Amino acid sequence: MKALRYYGARDIRHEDMDDPKLESERDAIIQMTGCSICGSDLHIYHGHGFSEDIGFCVGHEAVGEVVEVGRAVTRLKAGDKVMMPAAVGCGACRSCLAGVVNSCEFNAGSCYGLSAKLQGVQSQAFRVPAADTNAILIPEGISEDQALMMTDALATAWFGARNADIKPGSSVAVIGLGPIGLMAVDSAFVMGAHVVYAIDPIAERRALAAQSGAIALSPEEALERVREDTHGKKLDCVVEAVGHDATVDLALRLIARRGTVSVIGVQQSRRYAFPLERAFAAGLTFRIGTCSVPEEWPALIPLVQSGRLKPERYISHHLPLSEGAEAYALFDSREAGALKMVLKA
Amino acid sequence: MKALRYYGARDIRHEDMDDPKLESERDAIIQMTGCSICGSDLHIYHGHGFSEDIGFCVGHEAVGEVVEVGRAVTRLKAGDKVMMPAAVGCGACRSCLAGVVNSCEFNAGSCYGLSAKLQGVQSQAFRVPAADTNAILIPEGISEDQALMMTDALATAWFGARNADIKPGSSVAVIGLGPIGLMAVDSAFVMGAHVVYAIDPIAERRALAAQSGAIALSPEEALERVREDTHGKKLDCVVEAVGHDATVDLALRLIARRGTVSVIGVQQSRRYAFPLERAFAAGLTFRIGTCSVPEEWPALIPLVQSGRLKPERYISHHLPLSEGAEAYALFDSREAGALKMVLKA
Amino acid sequence: MKALRYYGARDIRHEDMDDPKLESERDAIIQMTGCSICGSDLHIYHGHGFSEDIGFCVGHEAVGEVVEVGRAVTRLKAGDKVMMPAAVGCGACRSCLAGVVNSCEFNAGSCYGLSAKLQGVQSQAFRVPAADTNAILIPEGISEDQALMMTDALATAWFGARNADIKPGSSVAVIGLGPIGLMAVDSAFVMGAHVVYAIDPIAERRALAAQSGAIALSPEEALERVREDTHGKKLDCVVEAVGHDATVDLALRLIARRGTVSVIGVQQSRRYAFPLERAFAAGLTFRIGTCSVPEEWPALIPLVQSGRLKPERYISHHLPLSEGAEAYALFDSREAGALKMVLKA
Amino acid sequence: MKALRYYGARDIRHEDMDDPKLESERDAIIQMTGCSICGSDLHIYHGHGFSEDIGFCVGHEAVGEVVEVGRAVTRLKAGDKVMMPAAVGCGACRSCLAGVVNSCEFNAGSCYGLSAKLQGVQSQAFRVPAADTNAILIPEGISEDQALMMTDALATAWFGARNADIKPGSSVAVIGLGPIGLMAVDSAFVMGAHVVYAIDPIAERRALAAQSGAIALSPEEALERVREDTHGKKLDCVVEAVGHDATVDLALRLIARRGTVSVIGVQQSRRYAFPLERAFAAGLTFRIGTCSVPEEWPALIPLVQSGRLKPERYISHHLPLSEGAEAYALFDSREAGALKMVLKA
Repeated sequence: MKALRYYGARDIRHEDMDDPKLESERDAIIQMTGCSICGSDLHIYHGHGFSEDIGFCVGHEAVGEVVEVGRAVTRLKAGDKVMMPAAVGCGACRSCLAGVVNSCEFNAGSCYGLSAKLQGVQSQAFRVPAADTNAILIPEGISEDQALMMTDALATAWFGARNADIKPGSSVAVIGLGPIGLMAVDSAFVMGAHVVYAIDPIAERRALAAQSGAIALSPEEALERVREDTHGKKLDCVVEAVGHDATVDLALRLIARRGTVSVIGVQQSRRYAFPLERAFAAGLTFRIGTCSVPEEWPALIPLVQSGRLKPERYISHHLPLSEGAEAYALFDSREAGALKMVLKA
Repeated sequence: MKALRYYGARDIRHEDMDDPKLESERDAIIQMTGCSICGSDLHIYHGHGFSEDIGFCVGHEAVGEVVEVGRAVTRLKAGDKVMMPAAVGCGACRSCLAGVVNSCEFNAGSCYGLSAKLQGVQSQAFRVPAADTNAILIPEGISEDQALMMTDALATAWFGARNADIKPGSSVAVIGLGPIGLMAVDSAFVMGAHVVYAIDPIAERRALAAQSGAIALSPEEALERVREDTHGKKLDCVVEAVGHDATVDLALRLIARRGTVSVIGVQQSRRYAFPLERAFAAGLTFRIGTCSVPEEWPALIPLVQSGRLKPERYISHHLPLSEGAEAYALFDSREAGALKMVLKA
Repeated sequence: MKALRYYGARDIRHEDMDDPKLESERDAIIQMTGCSICGSDLHIYHGHGFSEDIGFCVGHEAVGEVVEVGRAVTRLKAGDKVMMPAAVGCGACRSCLAGVVNSCEFNAGSCYGLSAKLQGVQSQAFRVPAADTNAILIPEGISEDQALMMTDALATAWFGARNADIKPGSSVAVIGLGPIGLMAVDSAFVMGAHVVYAIDPIAERRALAAQSGAIALSPEEALERVREDTHGKKLDCVVEAVGHDATVDLALRLIARRGTVSVIGVQQSRRYAFPLERAFAAGLTFRIGTCSVPEEWPALIPLVQSGRLKPERYISHHLPLSEGAEAYALFDSREAGALKMVLKA
Repeated sequence: MKALRYYGARDIRHEDMDDPKLESERDAIIQMTGCSICGSDLHIYHGHGFSEDIGFCVGHEAVGEVVEVGRAVTRLKAGDKVMMPAAVGCGACRSCLAGVVNSCEFNAGSCYGLSAKLQGVQSQAFRVPAADTNAILIPEGISEDQALMMTDALATAWFGARNADIKPGSSVAVIGLGPIGLMAVDSAFVMGAHVVYAIDPIAERRALAAQSGAIALSPEEALERVREDTHGKKLDCVVEAVGHDATVDLALRLIARRGTVSVIGVQQSRRYAFPLERAFAAGLTFRIGTCSVPEEWPALIPLVQSGRLKPERYISHHLPLSEGAEAYALFDSREAGALKMVLKA
């Protein structure tokens, strides 16, 4: 079969690869019908890999059709249309049984497409371990594109907004308007924000946020404008969706007394200069981390079904898997309106 | 001065009355610039008075201008434009200090216009006790009509929705589409409901709820339709905004396992036949009561300022105070699109 | 094998019964090492059966050892020491996957020992359906007696206290001091109650609650004493653990404004005369229902391991299974200090 | 009158000072009957003053008797025994009206004894601004020593524990066992912690924590022991009550995935090297700040009245105000079992 394989910085190739096989009675093999590129895939693309392996298949966002299941799989059968949470759990520990797969006791933080250990999903077919836990039937009324967004990006955006303690009446900022940031803006409104400041250097992305009802600002103008609008009180909730020290800094400057900063941008900083003295004087909550995708679904499924959230708005391109390398380059360039890139089998 | 005075069932008269006077150093006198008729005023109008007094002034929803303050009043001065929460507290006990005036330790449940003890506000002027607590400057960006809706009706609607545990993604029903029920529909959407069923026998009121995005149903069709739409699971949250046994019954039939029923309609039933066995099997939360208006304001003020809530939509008539009797009769008839009746000085 | 079988009111017999067999690949067969009698078993004992079946095996509280597992069972193997939640779920629906087995979409309310459909556990051996979900390894540091209490009674007591919104500093009453009520008293203290009134007509049971630090009262003296102690404010939280209209009434009389009543006693009343008018004036939350046992375990396991909760205190008798009929009669009599009756294989 | 006045590092003098006078109609004058020294007073004592003033009176923890009130004070009269929250609010803004005085819109962060602007309370008498808000009658059943502990230290300890999201069943560490840390240990148990690790280099202080039921550890042994006891999972909740980078570091090392770190030690670090990458991988909540004392009282008052919290345990010395300089030196030395130092008029 064909797969997108990693060979080093900016070197993703569409190549042959061995077909996936069941490795346990609890596994399933899925034929990919759609997959997509995540911001964190770009970390790998830039050569900051999570492993030293060469040639592993990348990607962790996919939907597809079940083609084969192990004999201990009870909830799925060949032909089922499924979506796969990006976070993979063992399915048997107490965390997994409670739906918190990203705290899996045996497997915490496991994900497709980070190394050869668990191959990625940007391929014609792939293996899902503990399939009863890690693949879910696409609910009725959810399109394949919507389901694809729910496997990771929308769940992360929603989690990021929840982590910022957004309540009805809150004032909010979202820093970084990639697909996740844009969906965090929409999430904030669904949670009852009365105002959302959407901050990004790229005008095109700001325009999308403005269409959602946000006040769109460049990073340069954000602090001054927020101070003015709020008579110096600043904002109840800030979501950081970039992953740089400078944007974490901006988040900590935009927050009001007793406010909450939620960091969902992938962080690689080991010694960020945190202003403890200022934070102590203001009193704040700083939350950081990644979501357990299936935990977010009970709220997200009806919101997508009913059209209150329309994650498919942020898909900018549908391309064949064979053009995966081009898709990576385009997404990385942030040009041509590139947002979520979907690759079809 | 002129005031609307109660003389018995369906007998409200626009008549002369003594001017209000300061009775304590903490009081203020307010010149009414707008007042409105509440559903609970209709209970008095129907002769189910809360007192035996004759000739007392009715009404508890008003905005106005400060004309005089006692010397212990520190937060207000003559000329200030203020809104008065319908619930009145002593301003000095622990509950009042925490903003929960309807649990005032000395004064619990106190309200304007229920007896001669504390005259109503449907008059050219009225006295506000403990004015530092019981009158608040109208925030910038809030119109007088909006402020009037916030003194009671919108706060009650919002509280009723909160009490139903509405969360992003919830499914909701609101039973009873008077002004409070209609605003409970809007509140439910702001809190993130993915669907709201709005139930009332009057088609005109259902049409307004439908404009807000609700699925509008008559009481007769509600249960069947909800069962069908939800494959028998029924709804997460139900708000009862009527005050009859039959509508409480309907609420308890519409609720899903582990759901929450919130009752805000004024209740006079002393022995409602509660289906404990069924409730025990399903597991549910049943909340009932009235709100402490100022507790709801921190969320409501920015939501009204930003236009996410538009309570003024439900004002159907503006009439002079002198036509108060006609306004009561019209509101009571539920005809001619009568919803919130505003009386101007 | 031997089992306790139901033949009508007050007619439980220790008799032969067919050995249990796997009915699905997901089942397990458990050899009982300890089982116990629940207050709700007494409803059956009194002839208010949940089914018309004759001769079915009763009981839903047990611990034991795995003797056989179906080939789709992945988390258990022969020899494992396990405890079984009283509530049984399908293990595959969204509710079960989230740990909420008593809201199982296919199986809601399912339980051992209510009919011949799913035989009880008061027998030498029994079948557990969907064993990966419905049987859990006894955690280290938990004795067999403690584990037995956790399968239902302690979880229900804890849930009842949680449902009463007990917070640090709350004032609490528990009505009914059977094993569940007594453990609700202990739970309330662990949750931070500053005072717990423990109410029961039986002096012996009151003495046990007093040993836990509660103020023990008879039902007759409770209301007057609480009014006096609280200067008329009454209590923040009341747990009803009996299941009669009179005790629900008492709960609604003991509650303060804005308080929460939690009903966990098994209810069979279809038309309880609920005082809506009074409840509306006070503002209250009324919660009722049964727990999903495994949901309570993440908190309970460490509290029992560390000795903060000692549920084994309320086991009054250990008897052989062969004396099951006598154990039922003794528990029903409430005499001789009878509380939790444990039957050993 | 006599007062403790600040003249520079380690130079606190018991000297004459002008008697306090009413400066507004809303003020009160209090005769001190007990005051105490806070860890944050030591920051001033070490010369890290919050102002450049010389000779100002220090201290922010006191109880006393009202001797005079301005004419706009309605809740207090001469002779009342009162306790003063350390945080001072204007009493008129929305934050103060909601009981959140440390977010006072005009006065945020205001406190006695930081400068000449608002003199301290370690003196025979002092002025309380907005006395209706900033002085509260000592509740019945609370001793003067207990009330003194509630003005700041106990409220801060409790807040620190709340901020760590301690729930029944949580595992907890408290770093730093001064009076606040020791009371945070007790608070954690009242909130339902199943285990509390109490960490401090001073053996004497560890012994006190052990008496409360904590596992007492030195900073050196803490991480290893916690890892071992928890099989590597580490702890749900950590309270940092010191105020150094090294202890914040330790807190971030002791925390489990999805855990919460609460920092209440006074922080002066402007560029703490925060391990964002590790925190992102684990997922955590980091809370920091000071409490609004009166917000904590509704829970604390009944817990102290009922004896569940005994803050007076941590008073090590009662000395006359005239020995204030010696008291500072002794507290600073951490010797002779010095914990909370109380000074009597």
